[in-house]
Amino acid sequence: MEQLPSIKLLLKHLQQVPYLASKNLYRVAIHFLNMDENKIQQFCTALQTAKKNITKCEQCFTWKEKSDKCIYCDSLKREKSVICIVETWQELLAIEKTGGYLGLYHVLGGAICPLDGISAEDLTIEQLVSRVKNFGIKEIILAMNQTPEGEATSNYIANKLKDIDVSISCLAKGVPVGSSLEYMDRVTLYKALSDRRPF
Amino acid sequence: MEQLPSIKLLLKHLQQVPYLASKNLYRVAIHFLNMDENKIQQFCTALQTAKKNITKCEQCFTWKEKSDKCIYCDSLKREKSVICIVETWQELLAIEKTGGYLGLYHVLGGAICPLDGISAEDLTIEQLVSRVKNFGIKEIILAMNQTPEGEATSNYIANKLKDIDVSISCLAKGVPVGSSLEYMDRVTLYKALSDRRPF
Repeated sequence: MEQLPSIKLLLKHLQQVPYLASKNLYRVAIHFLNMDENKIQQFCTALQTAKKNITKCEQCFTWKEKSDKCIYCDSLKREKSVICIVETWQELLAIEKTGGYLGLYHVLGGAICPLDGISAEDLTIEQLVSRVKNFGIKEIILAMNQTPEGEATSNYIANKLKDIDVSISCLAKGVPVGSSLEYMDRVTLYKALSDRRPF
Repeated sequence: MEQLPSIKLLLKHLQQVPYLASKNLYRVAIHFLNMDENKIQQFCTALQTAKKNITKCEQCFTWKEKSDKCIYCDSLKREKSVICIVETWQELLAIEKTGGYLGLYHVLGGAICPLDGISAEDLTIEQLVSRVKNFGIKEIILAMNQTPEGEATSNYIANKLKDIDVSISCLAKGVPVGSSLEYMDRVTLYKALSDRRPF
């Protein structure tokens, strides 16, 4: 395999694709070699078209078609005074799937993590603050991941917004639906106890 | 996501890549969207170059660069009177890694499997027979997978070669190195017992 330069180059590029286990690289390479030249052309065109046509919305930083309006910011059905803040687009999609939220979004692009060299300046926090100031936002929902980095980012944002007249909420912490208490970690269970609700 | 046609098309193409779990498709799509246009170009070029430059050797059916000789068939270091028959290239690579074989190969392109619609005519068995006849081959090693399909293919090939003066061997069946007898299936253990060797 390593003696064939074209395959070696292809493997080098496939290596950079995330979520492709290294033991499967050869198999994927062979899959592509067995494909029609035509199909490969189509695959490449899809890749290049997506790169060319897709950009980030300048307000909420989700992906959008360059020629179209943002499907969240410019939707007529959405409540324009609530912003849900998420780390990345994947979290946004997870929230969208619930069907339980009809406000705006703001994608930070990650969470503050000094160990990985991600500081507040690398995220879209500044743009968020000016959005809250200028667009009459009434509520902010912090929907960061429940990780130390997510918590730190939540605190940072809450601190940045403290002088602005906006209510800030965060997702409820507790026992996930469908799970057994026996297998729950103690911090979650403690949270679920202390945040208990009338039945 | 589904509302953005360029991303939808990209996802459709990514879906066809094997060994890419469907839960990771979005993440891979976003990885590509975050890449430089330049890098995407390089990725596509690598894919197209590999497809353009790589072909199958007309003798042994392994992959080779179109402009080069086959690294197995045309190697001066290899014993030209022994052929090891494998189902696909992955098995060939596994055998190469052992460093214990220095003969020729023959890649069948799969195993006979009527349920999947793969018959003997779909494999390179005919070419193998004429190779054995015309190139003075003295030994054939059947290195098919130890599956019902592999066994059936071995039997079919042995039958096809029965009138030709060539010795046919197959891989030893037994207990894998490093494993406990306790966890071995009974057919393997039976084989290991009946094929026992002087210590």
